Amino acid sequence: MALIVQKYGGTSMGSPERIKNVARKVAKFRAEGHDVVVVVSAMSGETNRLIALAKEVAATPEPRELDVVISTGEQVTIGLLCMALQDIGVKAKSYTGSQVRILTDSSFTKARILEIDEERMRRDLQQGSVVVVAGFQGVDADGNITTLGRGGSDTTGVALAAALNADECQIYTDVDGVYTTDPRIVPEARKLDTITFEEMLEMASLGSKVLQIRSVEFAGKYKVKLRVLSSFQDGGEGTLITVEEDSNMEQPVISGIAFNRDEAKLTVLGVPDKPGIAYQILGPIAEANIDVDMIIQNVGHDGTTDFSFTVGRGDLDKAVKILDGVKAHFGARELKSDKTMAKVSVVGVGMRSHPGVASKMFRTLAEEGINIQMISTSEIKISVAIEEKYLELAVRVLHKAFGLDGGEA
Amino acid sequence: MALIVQKYGGTSMGSPERIKNVARKVAKFRAEGHDVVVVVSAMSGETNRLIALAKEVAATPEPRELDVVISTGEQVTIGLLCMALQDIGVKAKSYTGSQVRILTDSSFTKARILEIDEERMRRDLQQGSVVVVAGFQGVDADGNITTLGRGGSDTTGVALAAALNADECQIYTDVDGVYTTDPRIVPEARKLDTITFEEMLEMASLGSKVLQIRSVEFAGKYKVKLRVLSSFQDGGEGTLITVEEDSNMEQPVISGIAFNRDEAKLTVLGVPDKPGIAYQILGPIAEANIDVDMIIQNVGHDGTTDFSFTVGRGDLDKAVKILDGVKAHFGARELKSDKTMAKVSVVGVGMRSHPGVASKMFRTLAEEGINIQMISTSEIKISVAIEEKYLELAVRVLHKAFGLDGGEA
Repeated sequence: MALIVQKYGGTSMGSPERIKNVARKVAKFRAEGHDVVVVVSAMSGETNRLIALAKEVAATPEPRELDVVISTGEQVTIGLLCMALQDIGVKAKSYTGSQVRILTDSSFTKARILEIDEERMRRDLQQGSVVVVAGFQGVDADGNITTLGRGGSDTTGVALAAALNADECQIYTDVDGVYTTDPRIVPEARKLDTITFEEMLEMASLGSKVLQIRSVEFAGKYKVKLRVLSSFQDGGEGTLITVEEDSNMEQPVISGIAFNRDEAKLTVLGVPDKPGIAYQILGPIAEANIDVDMIIQNVGHDGTTDFSFTVGRGDLDKAVKILDGVKAHFGARELKSDKTMAKVSVVGVGMRSHPGVASKMFRTLAEEGINIQMISTSEIKISVAIEEKYLELAVRVLHKAFGLDGGEA
Repeated sequence: MALIVQKYGGTSMGSPERIKNVARKVAKFRAEGHDVVVVVSAMSGETNRLIALAKEVAATPEPRELDVVISTGEQVTIGLLCMALQDIGVKAKSYTGSQVRILTDSSFTKARILEIDEERMRRDLQQGSVVVVAGFQGVDADGNITTLGRGGSDTTGVALAAALNADECQIYTDVDGVYTTDPRIVPEARKLDTITFEEMLEMASLGSKVLQIRSVEFAGKYKVKLRVLSSFQDGGEGTLITVEEDSNMEQPVISGIAFNRDEAKLTVLGVPDKPGIAYQILGPIAEANIDVDMIIQNVGHDGTTDFSFTVGRGDLDKAVKILDGVKAHFGARELKSDKTMAKVSVVGVGMRSHPGVASKMFRTLAEEGINIQMISTSEIKISVAIEEKYLELAVRVLHKAFGLDGGEA
């Protein structure tokens, strides 16, 4: 008899047949005696369809009105899921963000949740109803409809779990859990039974996009027990995302190998080796809203130095144009760019207590003749930038070297 | 400087291009200095699409949840219209039924409006905004979303006009006004400049389906000045629906010729001519929710009589089956049915003060050899049931006889 919040994404809600399938899944939990609150996304493709419609009537749709339009996607699915539940004899009641009352700030299209009124939900649960809540949306203090931005339904799920003090928040998706790396690259990749919030954040931001980062941060902050599961597969335990480090000594030091293919490197050669140069180079880049990831400043000689950094590949042309414009100011010799970079990271809270992870990583890559172009580290991850053509090879050898392959765990 | 409520139907909102067209229309009224509140329907076809989706997940969708789903149609169009207005520099703000607060009872899918809070709308109007309100929907006292039933957007328009004490409620549709009869049958049919509420009710219920009957009743009750106009044509005055009878003495006695093609007649022959027989025959029909329209009981002879009535053609088989079952009870000789009936009506408040309308109607039809099978009258209309094959002829000759043809007005 637990209180479970379940979140089903757009693919799980993608057709009437799939919605009926979700209803059967929810019914099973009810039959086991659990209280269930369900958060749903819009049917896959629906939000994009609505945005396209908006762009047909106005080049730059006003954000308040855009939220009025796109929030209908989830309003449709909450109603449909309730009907499907009632059709198989399960009491259910739907709520829009406004009806719950999920109070947010007034930042239309990217609102933040401020407060959740859980009274109506509790009353329905007590009366034996499944409560179905529209993800991705809320209402501001003036009664305006707001949305939380892409992936916001995960955040709704976690926030409701926190407000209701739920025993678990289950995120149903089209994968059956978090893997040690992408199984399309390493067939030996294993599903992790548990992963810490910190690791999950590193994995997510590095490209293993199972959960929206914001919802993971939220879950970590409010100590919500979060589980990722497949909505198309029955009986799996998925991956539990925990606050605590696994105390099992046999646990591998590294939890997974993350990667990102879409990197590009910029190098400014021969800049004066003096204070303030990093700001002079990166200031204009930041002003243009370009995210900079890894940064290296070589040791200078002859009073000049080389400065390199990576950006998302889509931002490269913009970044080059900006630097071309300001290069003269700081007297740089040359600007070089490389579109074919990739980033590979080993992630694991275990490395805090296990030195030697970095050297093992570098040795493994060196043995395959893979040149490391840049390095960045945090307490629980080490990332390297390499030529993109070596990406798959690097992921495979690191996965094996750190004992993540199925046989060796 | 008037306050105008405008209602645009699904066809007018049927595509991004059409929505932009509505925005331009609204902008013109704003430019003339008027305050404008706009009520919109869902894009044409959208409500049916949503109902179909609901029926795919549940054979009998629960009404509360059905309303949650189908109310999204208008929520999309209010947002889109506001964006389109803002895009051409017109301040605008959208409201769902719940946001306005259009308070209704809790009869999901066919709710009745109880009260409208006009404060937020007034504030926006004062600040120079066009207010765009979702038609067809409201909210009950518990915060549940309700809908008003088919055609409910007309009712929303009239109700808002009443609540705001608007100078006029304009219903934009795909015809440019109310006609003396269907121009497809009588090319000489003229658009009426004015028509009374009572006449409009008779015209509407008899098949000239320009406005939803309920909204006309509502407008009559609250003395809302109602005007029907084309949304695809500029500059027309449409038809004004008024409380008062036109005092113009030149006004023809009859305002229009209405008709209904889908009638069927049932005759029970040789029933005992005694009190209670009408109830015995029609009671079971009413219990089966079949609407009976015209009724005739012949003068009896030899202690028996014949009893006839009309029903909608779609109900005929059901009615025959019911009467076959009960016929023995009242000892009827025979049951006859006729599927090919039609009803033609002359409508006009003028007939109150002009006797002789009925005889003129009967003579006109007789001159064409059209046999009148049944007659029913009210204070402002006379209806006759005739064979369907004579329908067009009857409408044409009556239209001419009562001076409604273009040239003679």
